Amino acid sequence: MCLSNLSVVMIETSHPGNIGGAARAMKNMGVSDLRLVTPKQFPSPDAVARASGADDLLENAKIYADLDAALADCRIVVGASARDRTVTWPELTPRRAAQELSPLLADQRIAIVFGREHSGLTNAELDRCQYLLRIPCNPDFSSLNVAAAVQVVCYEFFAHSQATEAVSEPGAAPDLADAAALESFFEHLRCTLFDIGFFHATKSSPSLMRRLRRIFHRARLEHTEIHMLRGILSQMQIRLQRSDAD
Amino acid sequence: MCLSNLSVVMIETSHPGNIGGAARAMKNMGVSDLRLVTPKQFPSPDAVARASGADDLLENAKIYADLDAALADCRIVVGASARDRTVTWPELTPRRAAQELSPLLADQRIAIVFGREHSGLTNAELDRCQYLLRIPCNPDFSSLNVAAAVQVVCYEFFAHSQATEAVSEPGAAPDLADAAALESFFEHLRCTLFDIGFFHATKSSPSLMRRLRRIFHRARLEHTEIHMLRGILSQMQIRLQRSDAD
Repeated sequence: MCLSNLSVVMIETSHPGNIGGAARAMKNMGVSDLRLVTPKQFPSPDAVARASGADDLLENAKIYADLDAALADCRIVVGASARDRTVTWPELTPRRAAQELSPLLADQRIAIVFGREHSGLTNAELDRCQYLLRIPCNPDFSSLNVAAAVQVVCYEFFAHSQATEAVSEPGAAPDLADAAALESFFEHLRCTLFDIGFFHATKSSPSLMRRLRRIFHRARLEHTEIHMLRGILSQMQIRLQRSDAD
Repeated sequence: MCLSNLSVVMIETSHPGNIGGAARAMKNMGVSDLRLVTPKQFPSPDAVARASGADDLLENAKIYADLDAALADCRIVVGASARDRTVTWPELTPRRAAQELSPLLADQRIAIVFGREHSGLTNAELDRCQYLLRIPCNPDFSSLNVAAAVQVVCYEFFAHSQATEAVSEPGAAPDLADAAALESFFEHLRCTLFDIGFFHATKSSPSLMRRLRRIFHRARLEHTEIHMLRGILSQMQIRLQRSDAD
């Protein structure tokens, strides 16, 4: 069981009680790494009350000024979202997420990101995610309490770990790029696309960039692949500078 | 979907917030029949606040003086319990309960009974149950918040109803690129990498090309994405020719 590599990231949570509820839900399911991005009110006695004995998770919770910092060491980022998005994202149910991602937990950190109580995740935040996680629910009343959503997701990962504990599959897991390396690559890509004139001041560049991100997110890049791709981008920039200098 | 025949019975709940949380969790999962046996404090603004829009379930909740009355019209009674009992009860996980009991919901009422926050169900109450329901969890921290437990159980029943209802899920399948389009893209990529000098006559170019193919194969490119990527390659080639002509 490697649930120690599963992180719960909560963004701008308004009610500290929900942070406590999430901590309790996590501990019930053997998950311990809680990360809070600019919580409205924390620490708080409401959080401790709702944690109901999961005080250790609250004490050890790390607080971050932005999402990038919270995800720096995470290889896979999954965004929990109730909303129907027009952009088609690779979508997982909690059960599917547990099935597909649990094998990676052996040596890679995976973050599940939960958005604000009333507005969820922004598009910019979703851009950081390789997968969108959607909890099956009543379409007419689809907004779960955030601690309840944490409960369901952690429950699925725990249940999966119990079911597969006996039969563990070895097999070298890929050395996936972490979030910081991915972001550097995307920034390098963006700059290069400006340099070659692909993005020259068109209004559409953010949406094009989003589509490119989706392609590479789906590919689940390894560190060495990022290195190779950035080598291509650098070579392109060098070649352009040389041409321009001629 | 016959979740209308699924009842949630809460016994002597101390915190009205938990009743509200349970109502919200139920409504999220398409379950609506809430029965309260001697709640400590109900109705309550705390319950309404936590219900967060599931007010109808609170308004329609029935209040009973004892468990017998609450179960009068129920054919199957399942007791949710975290504790290890010396008495061996037929035990179900939430998933197993959903699998085994859902077919009965077509014409029979099934009650899931949730005990007090601190002491759960008494043995006398368990005597009323045909099954004991146990949520898989961390053995060192096994007491779930009662609303969180309601969430997990209702989620399993809802997920089961969805899985059996929709044999096939529609959802627009991506328009994946065919092999010919992919090969044209790879050839375009290879040429461009020669043009920019990334591949200049190195022996390693076949293996680099193979690694690039693997990345894009994993991404399972759609036709429109191939189009976009080739647009980038063309722009790069145009830009180089322009520079070289200067």
